[in-house]
Amino acid sequence: MMRKFNIEVVEKLRCLIAASDSVRISDFIRHYPAIDFAEMVSELEDTEIAGLVRLISDDELASLMEESEDRERIRIARTLDNRRLLTAFEYMQKDDIVDMLGDFPIRRRKELIRLMKSSDQAIINNLLKYPEDSAGGLMTTDYIALHDDLTVADALDSIRHEGPKTDLIQTIFVIDSRRNLIGSISLRQLLTAPKETQIRRLMDAQVISVTPEADQEEAALLVSRYDLYAIPVVSRAKQILGIITVDDIIDVIIEEYNNDMLQLAGVNVEEDLNSTWKESVRMRLPWLLVNLATAFLASFTVNLFQSTIQQVVALSAVMTIISGMGGNAGTQTLSILVRALSRQELDKKEILHHLLKEIAVGVLDGASCGAVTAIVVFFMYHNGFLSLIVLLAMIGNMFVSAIFGFLVPVILQKCHADPAVASSIFVTTATDTLGFFIFLGLANLTLPLLLR
Amino acid sequence: MMRKFNIEVVEKLRCLIAASDSVRISDFIRHYPAIDFAEMVSELEDTEIAGLVRLISDDELASLMEESEDRERIRIARTLDNRRLLTAFEYMQKDDIVDMLGDFPIRRRKELIRLMKSSDQAIINNLLKYPEDSAGGLMTTDYIALHDDLTVADALDSIRHEGPKTDLIQTIFVIDSRRNLIGSISLRQLLTAPKETQIRRLMDAQVISVTPEADQEEAALLVSRYDLYAIPVVSRAKQILGIITVDDIIDVIIEEYNNDMLQLAGVNVEEDLNSTWKESVRMRLPWLLVNLATAFLASFTVNLFQSTIQQVVALSAVMTIISGMGGNAGTQTLSILVRALSRQELDKKEILHHLLKEIAVGVLDGASCGAVTAIVVFFMYHNGFLSLIVLLAMIGNMFVSAIFGFLVPVILQKCHADPAVASSIFVTTATDTLGFFIFLGLANLTLPLLLR
Repeated sequence: MMRKFNIEVVEKLRCLIAASDSVRISDFIRHYPAIDFAEMVSELEDTEIAGLVRLISDDELASLMEESEDRERIRIARTLDNRRLLTAFEYMQKDDIVDMLGDFPIRRRKELIRLMKSSDQAIINNLLKYPEDSAGGLMTTDYIALHDDLTVADALDSIRHEGPKTDLIQTIFVIDSRRNLIGSISLRQLLTAPKETQIRRLMDAQVISVTPEADQEEAALLVSRYDLYAIPVVSRAKQILGIITVDDIIDVIIEEYNNDMLQLAGVNVEEDLNSTWKESVRMRLPWLLVNLATAFLASFTVNLFQSTIQQVVALSAVMTIISGMGGNAGTQTLSILVRALSRQELDKKEILHHLLKEIAVGVLDGASCGAVTAIVVFFMYHNGFLSLIVLLAMIGNMFVSAIFGFLVPVILQKCHADPAVASSIFVTTATDTLGFFIFLGLANLTLPLLLR
Repeated sequence: MMRKFNIEVVEKLRCLIAASDSVRISDFIRHYPAIDFAEMVSELEDTEIAGLVRLISDDELASLMEESEDRERIRIARTLDNRRLLTAFEYMQKDDIVDMLGDFPIRRRKELIRLMKSSDQAIINNLLKYPEDSAGGLMTTDYIALHDDLTVADALDSIRHEGPKTDLIQTIFVIDSRRNLIGSISLRQLLTAPKETQIRRLMDAQVISVTPEADQEEAALLVSRYDLYAIPVVSRAKQILGIITVDDIIDVIIEEYNNDMLQLAGVNVEEDLNSTWKESVRMRLPWLLVNLATAFLASFTVNLFQSTIQQVVALSAVMTIISGMGGNAGTQTLSILVRALSRQELDKKEILHHLLKEIAVGVLDGASCGAVTAIVVFFMYHNGFLSLIVLLAMIGNMFVSAIFGFLVPVILQKCHADPAVASSIFVTTATDTLGFFIFLGLANLTLPLLLR
């Protein structure tokens, strides 16, 4: 079951805050998963949040901030002075602190970093160097790395000591004397191996890793392909810098997919249901204007054939079917290609073979849809020649849609643009414009026959 | 870096198979991650695979089959007799065996189950009951569950013994004397707690779980929300039946998103680049025909206004802009709604408020795009009245697109249809048909003014 809370629970929390009952608030917090509690807090007013943070302990505050959404975090931070915030930071993972600092106004961020211990300052400043969506921006510096000359018994002792600082102990990384990553070992192996064995002899020397500059999507691909619980981030010199755990990878995967879906529809990823109407207009209008430009392209094509349409006005009703169906078929081809590209399934040597298959499919689908359309059109206008043109134009436009649906994503990928997002507009522009051109052009060429 | 192999590596494997060099094949296998090896094997011919499986050990065979794609697995299984397959099963997780059996011809499946030990038979038959996309179909029965009265020392001893059988030991589940799930404990806690403490005192009694009948998407939502490494599957009576590990959850998330994307484009999720042209036509044509039906709806609307178009032929070029832009704006609204619905962010009490906002955004975007279009149209046709109609129709169609883009996904969700997949066709049908109707209708009503 989805553990959801209802509004009465929030009311109860409100009462506890009003009563300044810190003992029962502590019980309350223990009773719910941290993320559920963070969601309840997001329902509170600013003054209630200010009351709450005075009543909870530093580690409860740290957990609340870690689980809160970005904008809620800023609301909570506004109720805290720098001293309190710094003590809460002590209980947080460094990567979460960096994320949080990124959301703060620049002046407060600098102030807070200046007030930190110099060892923390160095780590934080180092992490701040990496873009938020890079492997470096995603990694945590809290992980267990053990020297390869330790015995199993020593290793287990270290883990007992370092364990509380890290989230994941399923996988332990092994480093040499220069802190270079040379292997990994699962805790399962450590627990079952003889105590005196050196961990170097047990470790798996095939460690999958990423560089800090790598895109977060690359880290996600590796974690999902190799079923990892964590992936280490290493410098070019192979020094271990941090790890990315699988829960953060899941967030990346969901975020990337949602962004792809939204961008495909021309929606800014920053927009949500709660954006104001001003924000929404500002974010959506640019995409609509780009589409307007492409719509004009199709419109100008129609305009070329004004006199033909005036003589056979039925063309104006049928032309939208031809262009629309080309768009639909092109989107199908496009989607198959985008998925194949993202899974790296498209073999260069077979491109021509696949393209020819898509064209064959396009022509056959075009012939089928064209035949149905031709029949309906015949019953509407009783003009056999018009029906023939409809059939030919449908086949022609589906031929075009197969070529564009195939080549546009391939070319965009070559140009290092994201085919999932950008392909659609190029393909539909082509199928609209060329769909009108083929249909009206055919009609124009054969006008005497059409009018007979 | 993505650890990819090149074609020479496959050639090397081919040579080792031809030379029947089982020692060097074993070295070869150890040298690559199991999934990479499985991909190399997928490049081999059937006869080479038959040669390979004779040269590798049972556990190497098990790992190869676990990491192979469904259709490759079947190819490998065809080269094996039942005895060999059953020994390989000994090294596999039960959920993987069940997945594999599901792909086999029904006769062979029954034969294999009949030949199993009766204890395995019971487990397999039980797992086969659940649909492949349910929590029960996804779970493994290899996990660690400890009785609540054990001490920490006893618990660690059990883990040392049971560890090798299970994949994940980060989280250990705690059961009472009736095997009911009553809590969970992290291995980290166990390692650092005093040896004589009962684990009942250390465990977290708030365990998030799913029932075996639950949809796999529900399990994925919980794992991602609560940052779990595994989620237990429990019966209604709270007995633990199995667990789902996070690597399987990642596969579910990726699969669900890919399916959504493809279905949105009218592509059957079974189709891929390697489908034959016959399969592709058979799978794509139905969706194209559905779209054709909706395209006729728009076409009939245009047909109603034949005589108007004949008198002002410019209408035919401009009308496609109005309908197309409505579709684009509707898709934007739709995407925002689909995401909000999937995240359960749409508060029922605020539906009217959000709808009014969308309408306001639609009208404003419509006014902006309409003004630009009106100006361009004026320079094309020098007809101020036509420009005025363009502006009004654009505002009207964007008003329509906001209402449909908002309500279609909400209503589909109410009807338990997937709004991510089905919304698009309803919204674009509405914006096409009503877009033509509003624009051509306005032109028809004011024809004398247009012709002046």
